[in-house]
Amino acid sequence: MTKIAIDAMGGDNAPDEIVKGVAQASHEFDAEYILIGDRIRLEQCMQKYPPRSGTFEIRHTAEFVGMDESPRDALESKPEASISVAAKLLKEDKADAMLSAGNTGAVILAAANNIPMIEGVERSALAVVIPNLVLDKSKPAFTLLLDVGATIHCDVKHLVHFAIMGNIYSKEILGLTTPRLGLLNIGAEDTKGGYTLTQTHKVLKDINELDFIGNIEGNGIIAGEANVVVCDGILGNVLIKLLEGVAEALGELGRYVYNKNIVYKMSLAMLSPGIKKLKKTFDYAEYGGASLMGFRKLCVKAHGKSNAKAIKNAIRIAVMSAQSNMCDKISQSVAEINRKIPFSKFVK
Amino acid sequence: MTKIAIDAMGGDNAPDEIVKGVAQASHEFDAEYILIGDRIRLEQCMQKYPPRSGTFEIRHTAEFVGMDESPRDALESKPEASISVAAKLLKEDKADAMLSAGNTGAVILAAANNIPMIEGVERSALAVVIPNLVLDKSKPAFTLLLDVGATIHCDVKHLVHFAIMGNIYSKEILGLTTPRLGLLNIGAEDTKGGYTLTQTHKVLKDINELDFIGNIEGNGIIAGEANVVVCDGILGNVLIKLLEGVAEALGELGRYVYNKNIVYKMSLAMLSPGIKKLKKTFDYAEYGGASLMGFRKLCVKAHGKSNAKAIKNAIRIAVMSAQSNMCDKISQSVAEINRKIPFSKFVK
Repeated sequence: MTKIAIDAMGGDNAPDEIVKGVAQASHEFDAEYILIGDRIRLEQCMQKYPPRSGTFEIRHTAEFVGMDESPRDALESKPEASISVAAKLLKEDKADAMLSAGNTGAVILAAANNIPMIEGVERSALAVVIPNLVLDKSKPAFTLLLDVGATIHCDVKHLVHFAIMGNIYSKEILGLTTPRLGLLNIGAEDTKGGYTLTQTHKVLKDINELDFIGNIEGNGIIAGEANVVVCDGILGNVLIKLLEGVAEALGELGRYVYNKNIVYKMSLAMLSPGIKKLKKTFDYAEYGGASLMGFRKLCVKAHGKSNAKAIKNAIRIAVMSAQSNMCDKISQSVAEINRKIPFSKFVK
Repeated sequence: MTKIAIDAMGGDNAPDEIVKGVAQASHEFDAEYILIGDRIRLEQCMQKYPPRSGTFEIRHTAEFVGMDESPRDALESKPEASISVAAKLLKEDKADAMLSAGNTGAVILAAANNIPMIEGVERSALAVVIPNLVLDKSKPAFTLLLDVGATIHCDVKHLVHFAIMGNIYSKEILGLTTPRLGLLNIGAEDTKGGYTLTQTHKVLKDINELDFIGNIEGNGIIAGEANVVVCDGILGNVLIKLLEGVAEALGELGRYVYNKNIVYKMSLAMLSPGIKKLKKTFDYAEYGGASLMGFRKLCVKAHGKSNAKAIKNAIRIAVMSAQSNMCDKISQSVAEINRKIPFSKFVK
């Protein structure tokens, strides 16, 4: 039976919404859950939101990492932090994937400290799904962007491995058959972006298993030009935070207009189906969180503000990754690429 | 008298809107203009939009770089391209600043080929103004972001010089007294972002003339946390293109909703003051274009789609830069910083 380790103490709404999300998942998915956290608090939550019987166990720990703590300091001073306990369960093969809505840095660091990487992979990548905003139905509805913060600067090998991870993730989790892959860059031409990006471009073009469509610019993500886009962690991170900022500001502008006067209020009420469509486009709860790849098992990082629905959707990803043997498939593909491509020649 | 070299053939609406913009500017600003382009076409435009007499001359050339041409190839095969002629006028001290709405790569390359850099400056930076989307009146209304595409990857010295350029530009052109400066990064902590960014952070903190407020994340730009934000060209470029993509997509969604049915149509009509406010926030014509800094004279790059109003606003920037001796001030400040800071120790 697929086992998912759940950091029940991570996130703004932990443990209540985490337990509620697990309870919902337990009725939908064929899996078992190890909830890690304060036993008394978790049992209280479970009385309110009972999971399907026989699908869960509690692993007690009193320690957890707060959302604003320094990941390094917190993990060092709290060896039994719930996120570390979860990562250790993966390391010891007692669970097949894990989920946390906690401190992102701590999730990445706990994974790095405990879970072995896929052989031949040197860097991990955090992948998020960005909905596109274009109405053209022939375009992909969303783009998987990686890395968004696990590896600040990447070399050719790292970016190529991220492309493989994103490609397999899109097939196994997002259900695509031939994902269109793009490389985030400063221009569309092959020669753009400096040494690492031009070399990465050349390598990706020659990998048969990838449907590489070339460089993608910032607007191409919004326009849904590709299903998967790879980039340095700093680039992806700034980009998703910018989009979060835009979404927040639009919400604020909406509230401002709404409070303005009765004509606005009526108009907005009439427009609400359209506005709901727009809001849904930016709603993280629909998309189930980010996925940390590169380790032998998948770590799903749900948004810190996740409610039960977002947790359930994130659990779906964890379950699917385990049941499809996604990480094994990545491992096979990476091994083949590493045999074929002399990455050592790409030294600046 | 201040002289501005105008690439009258660059941009989607050249030469008509360029000449119209120059005509408007000629009545507002105390400056003279050298319009570079096809004499017959320019004279035709001037009959429609006559500039104030005695403020302009035409420098004829039949060659120009198209918006979609490869900058390098075009400049090599067309030695008399209007953009190159403009840059040469700056080099020969026959003009004090220049303006083009043409091919961005060609503008940067023509400047690099002709105009000497400020002594001690090694890389140029393209700066754009990004309006913030926050209603809080105590926050800056916009952020100057640089570099957005002139220098793909930067080292410590480049980023520090960009900070100085942005600081002086904000004072001289944008009228700020003590611009708040931020460093675009993956997190708020001093230790984030890898070697170059952590070292840059340290250096900026110790420069007295800068009001350095620390690292800024992607959402901080939208929230107006800083007046000036510095970053690598690839980061800034992806970011502004992403924002352009969002603005376009929102416009498209608006049109979609508008065409949907009569209730939507009425509602949108009632909401139009609010929507206009939002649209204005994204309207490049209000902000007058990007500025290419690092050379001894300023090159203003107006948006390719510029209309006459955008051209006039861009000319305003060129005139102000010349009349305030902005580039000399940057030169003095850079010389002082280069004396004080041992940049050569920052080698990876």
